[in-house]
Amino acid sequence: MIRNIKVEHLHETPIEKQETELVERKGIGHPDSISDGLAEAVSRALCKEYIDKCGAILHHNTDETQIVAGRSRPEFGGGEVLKPIYTLLVGRATMEFDGMEIPAEAVALQAAREYVRNTIPAMDLERDMIIDCKLGTGSSDLRDVFTRDHVPMANDTSFGVGHAPFSELEQVVYNTERQLLTDLKKKMIPGIGEDIKVMGLRENDDISLTICCGMVGRHIDDMDHYINAKEEMTEYVLDLATKYTDRIVSARINAADKVDGGCDCVFLTVTGTSAEMGDDGSVGRGNRSNGLITPSRPMSMEATSGKNPINHIGKIYNLLSTQMARDVVSAVDEVSDVHIKLLSQIGMPIDQPLVASAQVIPEDGANFAAIRSEAEVVIDDWLENITKITDMVVKGELDTF
Amino acid sequence: MIRNIKVEHLHETPIEKQETELVERKGIGHPDSISDGLAEAVSRALCKEYIDKCGAILHHNTDETQIVAGRSRPEFGGGEVLKPIYTLLVGRATMEFDGMEIPAEAVALQAAREYVRNTIPAMDLERDMIIDCKLGTGSSDLRDVFTRDHVPMANDTSFGVGHAPFSELEQVVYNTERQLLTDLKKKMIPGIGEDIKVMGLRENDDISLTICCGMVGRHIDDMDHYINAKEEMTEYVLDLATKYTDRIVSARINAADKVDGGCDCVFLTVTGTSAEMGDDGSVGRGNRSNGLITPSRPMSMEATSGKNPINHIGKIYNLLSTQMARDVVSAVDEVSDVHIKLLSQIGMPIDQPLVASAQVIPEDGANFAAIRSEAEVVIDDWLENITKITDMVVKGELDTF
Amino acid sequence: MIRNIKVEHLHETPIEKQETELVERKGIGHPDSISDGLAEAVSRALCKEYIDKCGAILHHNTDETQIVAGRSRPEFGGGEVLKPIYTLLVGRATMEFDGMEIPAEAVALQAAREYVRNTIPAMDLERDMIIDCKLGTGSSDLRDVFTRDHVPMANDTSFGVGHAPFSELEQVVYNTERQLLTDLKKKMIPGIGEDIKVMGLRENDDISLTICCGMVGRHIDDMDHYINAKEEMTEYVLDLATKYTDRIVSARINAADKVDGGCDCVFLTVTGTSAEMGDDGSVGRGNRSNGLITPSRPMSMEATSGKNPINHIGKIYNLLSTQMARDVVSAVDEVSDVHIKLLSQIGMPIDQPLVASAQVIPEDGANFAAIRSEAEVVIDDWLENITKITDMVVKGELDTF
Amino acid sequence: MIRNIKVEHLHETPIEKQETELVERKGIGHPDSISDGLAEAVSRALCKEYIDKCGAILHHNTDETQIVAGRSRPEFGGGEVLKPIYTLLVGRATMEFDGMEIPAEAVALQAAREYVRNTIPAMDLERDMIIDCKLGTGSSDLRDVFTRDHVPMANDTSFGVGHAPFSELEQVVYNTERQLLTDLKKKMIPGIGEDIKVMGLRENDDISLTICCGMVGRHIDDMDHYINAKEEMTEYVLDLATKYTDRIVSARINAADKVDGGCDCVFLTVTGTSAEMGDDGSVGRGNRSNGLITPSRPMSMEATSGKNPINHIGKIYNLLSTQMARDVVSAVDEVSDVHIKLLSQIGMPIDQPLVASAQVIPEDGANFAAIRSEAEVVIDDWLENITKITDMVVKGELDTF
Repeated sequence: MIRNIKVEHLHETPIEKQETELVERKGIGHPDSISDGLAEAVSRALCKEYIDKCGAILHHNTDETQIVAGRSRPEFGGGEVLKPIYTLLVGRATMEFDGMEIPAEAVALQAAREYVRNTIPAMDLERDMIIDCKLGTGSSDLRDVFTRDHVPMANDTSFGVGHAPFSELEQVVYNTERQLLTDLKKKMIPGIGEDIKVMGLRENDDISLTICCGMVGRHIDDMDHYINAKEEMTEYVLDLATKYTDRIVSARINAADKVDGGCDCVFLTVTGTSAEMGDDGSVGRGNRSNGLITPSRPMSMEATSGKNPINHIGKIYNLLSTQMARDVVSAVDEVSDVHIKLLSQIGMPIDQPLVASAQVIPEDGANFAAIRSEAEVVIDDWLENITKITDMVVKGELDTF
Repeated sequence: MIRNIKVEHLHETPIEKQETELVERKGIGHPDSISDGLAEAVSRALCKEYIDKCGAILHHNTDETQIVAGRSRPEFGGGEVLKPIYTLLVGRATMEFDGMEIPAEAVALQAAREYVRNTIPAMDLERDMIIDCKLGTGSSDLRDVFTRDHVPMANDTSFGVGHAPFSELEQVVYNTERQLLTDLKKKMIPGIGEDIKVMGLRENDDISLTICCGMVGRHIDDMDHYINAKEEMTEYVLDLATKYTDRIVSARINAADKVDGGCDCVFLTVTGTSAEMGDDGSVGRGNRSNGLITPSRPMSMEATSGKNPINHIGKIYNLLSTQMARDVVSAVDEVSDVHIKLLSQIGMPIDQPLVASAQVIPEDGANFAAIRSEAEVVIDDWLENITKITDMVVKGELDTF
Repeated sequence: MIRNIKVEHLHETPIEKQETELVERKGIGHPDSISDGLAEAVSRALCKEYIDKCGAILHHNTDETQIVAGRSRPEFGGGEVLKPIYTLLVGRATMEFDGMEIPAEAVALQAAREYVRNTIPAMDLERDMIIDCKLGTGSSDLRDVFTRDHVPMANDTSFGVGHAPFSELEQVVYNTERQLLTDLKKKMIPGIGEDIKVMGLRENDDISLTICCGMVGRHIDDMDHYINAKEEMTEYVLDLATKYTDRIVSARINAADKVDGGCDCVFLTVTGTSAEMGDDGSVGRGNRSNGLITPSRPMSMEATSGKNPINHIGKIYNLLSTQMARDVVSAVDEVSDVHIKLLSQIGMPIDQPLVASAQVIPEDGANFAAIRSEAEVVIDDWLENITKITDMVVKGELDTF
Repeated sequence: MIRNIKVEHLHETPIEKQETELVERKGIGHPDSISDGLAEAVSRALCKEYIDKCGAILHHNTDETQIVAGRSRPEFGGGEVLKPIYTLLVGRATMEFDGMEIPAEAVALQAAREYVRNTIPAMDLERDMIIDCKLGTGSSDLRDVFTRDHVPMANDTSFGVGHAPFSELEQVVYNTERQLLTDLKKKMIPGIGEDIKVMGLRENDDISLTICCGMVGRHIDDMDHYINAKEEMTEYVLDLATKYTDRIVSARINAADKVDGGCDCVFLTVTGTSAEMGDDGSVGRGNRSNGLITPSRPMSMEATSGKNPINHIGKIYNLLSTQMARDVVSAVDEVSDVHIKLLSQIGMPIDQPLVASAQVIPEDGANFAAIRSEAEVVIDDWLENITKITDMVVKGELDTF
């Protein structure tokens, strides 16, 4: 069956040439990102459990997690959580299959605790966080079994959106958070917390980065130490940015700090996340599945994290459209920017979207007819192999936030 | 102090001329919208309580609500909820002021129950829904008092996004849900439930609307009645669309129905919302503050509902940017489309954004210099009067989802 | 099959002749009693639902309810609850029968709300109390259906205890709470709250009553009014006591009051129960099934409220042993006191206890052989008709606390 | 000030000579006992925290814990928890002292998790149990500081009850549970679970013990192993009983087992407690502070566990009366049985009970006048040194259930 693929020539100022551009990334320790991460960790653990016990991934949707902030008393050299963070895992799961009960809530709890332990190492799960769980069953009486015999049917009328390539600012913002955590924290500054928010603004050729980073009290001895850490981080970030752009970059870390006050007047934490003190969080409120919030780009509101990777359009089409966009850019010449939108029809095979729309901003002078036909091939090919997305999700090869 | 206002000429195919366009609206009874509505109702009630007791709105942020779906057994002519929907109100509020304790949680509970009662009339709050509440205090030791003496300081580095005017498709989608509920349900078809999702796709000059609407069992006698209701609704929608567009419009309601099955095979509910059976919900996952989800337009990920209307950028700048965009369109000639983005600086007065960016797609042949200077005036004027947004929110004059 | 009934001559100073005696009653608005009442209301509603839908009472056990106290600001003439009381209904219920789902949690929620509304009229369920619910299924895979064909089997190895007649002090304590609420409050002093605790101490022929009663602010204008109310209540109680005893009775109400302080220094409430401010409650912690706490008498620790009335020994044997004791006293001459203890054997018919023990203190000079044989008849007769207890419970003819 | 101590000669058949006697003990892994243990562990941890941070124990009362049972699938050689047990810690604690915030909920959470880990070793806290916490503040605005300068004032009008010595049956029942767990499990049968309920019935000189013990699947290979373990346990119990009585003792373990069925038909567990499958639990529903439930003895309904050991009569007077009774028996000759009851007056020093009543059954021919005066000395001496109870509680020297 022929797929409804529309490749459109979009006449638009390419993002790099627009005068202003805004990009944000919430780091993995931001309360919204923790929620995303928990939702996805629970879904992955359920996938594994279902495959182990039933030979196939069963229906589930755990794309909701509510984090209720705690209270804390941060201190240089230590500090303590006063009131534990309360986290409620929420969603739907198949609890019974072929007469066998599946320990969905026990699996969810274990996966969530393991995720936090690995992601926020300064969080003491014995006293700093309560993880609660309310998984119900879904609306389907059959609680569909997904088999390999046919392409799954879309669970909903919904859409996914993706774009490529990343602009310079997008690269700078994304990598700033990633590198601070995976490189600088590991090698030099253990006091960097996981709750890093990077806000990037480009005005023509000036990029300014506003970074909020919750520092971890136990690794920061005093205010001098704190100030030094911020200075090193700033230098590191400015240096890092040169890999992605020649534009002029400035960076401010924890701009609201009053360093002549006490530890209350700077962004110090006990655990590395502001969820310890007043910042609630939930799924789908932060980064899109490409890791960024990009108001200048098409975006979907669908939460990608936690949905099942078999037939949940809100997950598959968001991940897929980003993959498609990247492949169009790499496989097709003369494409400046591409935006992909995939719209499903509930109850129809997921490889047959109601429309697969690609809006292409070609480079100046490009042959759009050639672009169209090549892009169609890339898109059709991905749809033909759509279950590859499922496999990549299960294997943990795709980030969702 | 001069404001950093940037009005840019955006060279872009105007939305009406793009080949494909996608627009979605989640109706007020969708689980995500119920969450939004609860969050905003709680914030409004707190504003009122603070003004009554303290003479000023105190710090709060109730932009989180988690709805955990229940279970139900819908039936033509009746049905019943089996397991109540569980709703957790979450957020931050000032609990004490000047030695006086404020009943924040009691106020929140009452406001939430009243909101549901008014919004989802078929929901029996005595047995169909549990409303729980976990409000904490914030991170600020002072728990800022907002006074009228000065412009409030931004609570965060964050941005708001808005656009105008609505495209034809946007108008059709928005009004379809609104009119089905406020007009057709009231006058003719009481079986229309509040959980209406409208997905609009435009391919060139063809518009197709996919509508999911949870019908209320007690008002639908049998399958014939159900089918008739859908037919009347379809007719109504197609007729309504002609007010907003001359394009060809088709509409499908509850496309996954199997009308030769029982009541399980169609979208029948007890209460009018799918939260009764398997659909969880949370704040900020649905409509943007203009009432729509528009992947072809710039959007912010910030939840507008539930945030305090004094200094919370995630609320004020989203509402403001939409108002600005609408005023630019109405006050400035020859503007085809305008996108507004406002970026705050934490700790700085909210009338002094780091940047106020307007991207204008002028009509063909327009004088952009004139547009720029007139638009700057509109934007500057709104910033000068930014606290008007606060007043409008408190008075309930601005929708947030 | 012959029943193991043991009637024993107990050589013991009858309670009226002991030098000291202690008796306590927690009124229906005490947090522990509210828990008891909720547990029993939920069980009764489930019984009714099961009978309506399935024609028989199905397995359930809802003998757990946790009340987490709120916060309040009582005032003469008004006051308000600041933080709602949180109530968690807990227990086991059959959720499915013969392919039909039973709305156990919805029924529980509705019954609980109705119970509070009827019992604590000053409690505003819209803002003063959150009622949450966690009912699970039981350990039995069969989820036993109870039929009329045979006597049910005991669910556990457990016992019930009862005594008769009430001593003078027991009558005084019991009726003090009852009459204050059902007579004096209704006729004269609406400010009497439901949270009344009566502690009675008899030292030889002196009885002293210590009464704690949470007064309801909205019905008490000021401190003078409060003091007057207490005086009227004291008079009423002393007068009432003369119906039950010729001993010397003294009474103190709210002994910790400091009436020269403000409303904080007396026992004033908003709702009539101390659950609004700091007093948590749970099931089975207060009155035994005869309405009293009697450390000088044999008691069972089993919670009577909330258990199913079909096979749950902890309920049936406690209710039954009290009925038996009362009938022995009324039907058999020359019995001064009787204590009944019934011990079940798990899995055996409930009319065949492992032992039914009656310890009788005969009047001086009584013929114990005659007492024994007559008491045996009473006891055997009750066991023969044990399901009468079930019927009385379902009809609401037996109090459980 | 002279204390109101009443020593009364009770004319009563001593317990050993009564024809029937009933005694029960719920082992430490019974859901009610786990609740008791958690409540007490939390209180001890708070005492320690308050002493460390504030130099004195501050007001708290954590005598409520609700355990909501999970679901499990036990198996010989393994098994798994399907739905985690949900545990809600409830109570009151001082959260702020002298401007310093106290991490009461974090301390409670940590203490609870540590308690379960130490007490129920087969429970995997990562997946088998959720521990949640709702601690509020109390009704006292002052949140009393307890100092050493004076004897604390009673928090309530309440009483404690104790008796001594233990009857033969009481000793047998108590030690059966204790030795099965601390001796036989450790040395020989690791499959013995912590959820052991011992019900003892004496009819004249015949003692029958009914023991329910949840065996731990991972340590029991198959049904033969299970049957053998029960046989060894039975032998062990009968042998143990000879230390405490010469009466004829019989014992039945897990009487409802059907050993020709599968593992569903015997009392097998995953974790060692029936809380994993359908048995809820709460504080104060099980053993009295002497470790037993004794319907033939005077009892208090007060929960001893979790209350603060400074001024909470429900704790102190129950512990004290048992100590007093034991000392009367050991220090005073010719006492067959003694029952102690202590009744407080709210707001009065705890060493000045409204009445301290001792009811003594002397041995035949004893000099009661001598007993009275000696017993008075013992009782007065304990009241004089009542704060010793507090010290013993804090040091963990007194069991509470």
